[in-house]
Amino acid sequence: MSILVVGSIVLDTVRSPYGEAENALGGSAIYFAGAASRFTEVRLVGVVGEDFPEEGRRFLTDRKVDLEGLRTVPGETFAYECEYGWNPNDRTTIDTRLNVFENFHPELPERYRRTPTLFLGNIAPVLQEEVLDQMEGPRHVAADTMNFWIQGDRPGLERLLRRVDTLFLNDAEAMELTGEKNLVKAIRRVTEFGPTTVVAKKGEHGAVLYRNGSFFVVPAYPVETVRDPTGGGDAFAGGVLGRLAGGDGVDDASFREAMLHGTAIASFVVEDFGPRRLESLTDEEYEERVRTIRSMITLSP
Amino acid sequence: MSILVVGSIVLDTVRSPYGEAENALGGSAIYFAGAASRFTEVRLVGVVGEDFPEEGRRFLTDRKVDLEGLRTVPGETFAYECEYGWNPNDRTTIDTRLNVFENFHPELPERYRRTPTLFLGNIAPVLQEEVLDQMEGPRHVAADTMNFWIQGDRPGLERLLRRVDTLFLNDAEAMELTGEKNLVKAIRRVTEFGPTTVVAKKGEHGAVLYRNGSFFVVPAYPVETVRDPTGGGDAFAGGVLGRLAGGDGVDDASFREAMLHGTAIASFVVEDFGPRRLESLTDEEYEERVRTIRSMITLSP
Repeated sequence: MSILVVGSIVLDTVRSPYGEAENALGGSAIYFAGAASRFTEVRLVGVVGEDFPEEGRRFLTDRKVDLEGLRTVPGETFAYECEYGWNPNDRTTIDTRLNVFENFHPELPERYRRTPTLFLGNIAPVLQEEVLDQMEGPRHVAADTMNFWIQGDRPGLERLLRRVDTLFLNDAEAMELTGEKNLVKAIRRVTEFGPTTVVAKKGEHGAVLYRNGSFFVVPAYPVETVRDPTGGGDAFAGGVLGRLAGGDGVDDASFREAMLHGTAIASFVVEDFGPRRLESLTDEEYEERVRTIRSMITLSP
Repeated sequence: MSILVVGSIVLDTVRSPYGEAENALGGSAIYFAGAASRFTEVRLVGVVGEDFPEEGRRFLTDRKVDLEGLRTVPGETFAYECEYGWNPNDRTTIDTRLNVFENFHPELPERYRRTPTLFLGNIAPVLQEEVLDQMEGPRHVAADTMNFWIQGDRPGLERLLRRVDTLFLNDAEAMELTGEKNLVKAIRRVTEFGPTTVVAKKGEHGAVLYRNGSFFVVPAYPVETVRDPTGGGDAFAGGVLGRLAGGDGVDDASFREAMLHGTAIASFVVEDFGPRRLESLTDEEYEERVRTIRSMITLSP
């Protein structure tokens, strides 16, 4: 079954100890769609400026991403510039220019409205809600958020969360949202805000799934060189939700299995700048990595 | 089969946001022995002063720990004082008095020398080597170390490591030892120093086993209130090695299973000050926790 993503589309300029990329394809919608399209049909809602490169569009159409919801408007595409230290968690923002994204109001094409799975990428909660308002009976509503909105629009975020089934966030965000200093308590308490499923992303420490009162933990794939961590979290969400949407339903076992796939695809994304590693990725490489992650939590190897 | 531990025996004064303990039983040998004795007979080598309380000795004899190697000498027992912040990783040392430990030279009783499994707790590498020199054909030599020795006696540590099968260390220590900024590379490279098995402790993020070219990852048990993190790492090592020594041999599957037990027993230790939670621990509570940890890495719950 198809999946609808709304999120940012960005031209990223990134420096890390391993090199740099200028105006590389980026943003939550791009990484999510690049990952999820491995498993199912993806419909995208977003906005770009007239400078958006043809290669960006081709990256999406090569992955059969439905672009009816992608609007091109006069002006420049959202641009972001940052630098990473040796520790991939050390990110310094150098420049953020929202450009055409500043006045973005997502509009869903008519035939998008009944998409069974929805992913609300990390954009303003009011925009996430605008999208939700246009949907007709989605079966699985997932969202991502970040500290910026927890601090900047808590009322809007809380209103949104009451309508969300699955929330993706990182460990610091879970603690900030709930005011709990202990991650375990924080993850449990996120469910008081509405979501029945919580996915806490911990970067190099993997990810935690909390659902029906139980935890499941998947380790990160042991990537030796994280060239560009940008988009890892969105690719992870794309892998998890894409795999679920492409499968038979959402139950505990399928969610746990999907966590392996999110982990696998995110591990490729962070190996190179932008989402380009997804372009060279073969099925054999992908399956091998899923096998390795599976073996990392197998008691009898 | 029995296991021999050499390490520190300390009277710990600890403050955390959850309370405090004064002159509580502590030190690597105590936590290790308290955990390992759940699974197998433990022989202890260490030193205490004349002030060492009778309750400390009883904690050990209640667990059938062999104390022939415990020497009591004139003077005061090693004393340590610290304070934890809300984040259990924030520890501030207030006072360290080595006392009788300062002149400690481990002497193994004759019948200890053929113990099949040896754990060299985190003491000076030269002392760890003195113990190893007194052993006769140990089957499994495990050791713990810390930044202090990596910086303070690298030559001694490197000499020791060539004789060690299994090294326990935390993530920062693995990186410091190898000079690698990436934990995965660091863990792999620890094997170049001698150990064939590396166990990297990551606290709330669990632990990583690296052996025969493969990784296994066990998550930490979701402890809601870490009252006193002291001794968690030593109890973890005691659980892992005790379970292995009490079992049929050391292969990949038994090592992985043992990691669950180390995790379970460490999770109890950090719930209360000192090792006292081990005294009230029932078999039912223990088995329940092992089941929960197992379920956290199970794909089909």
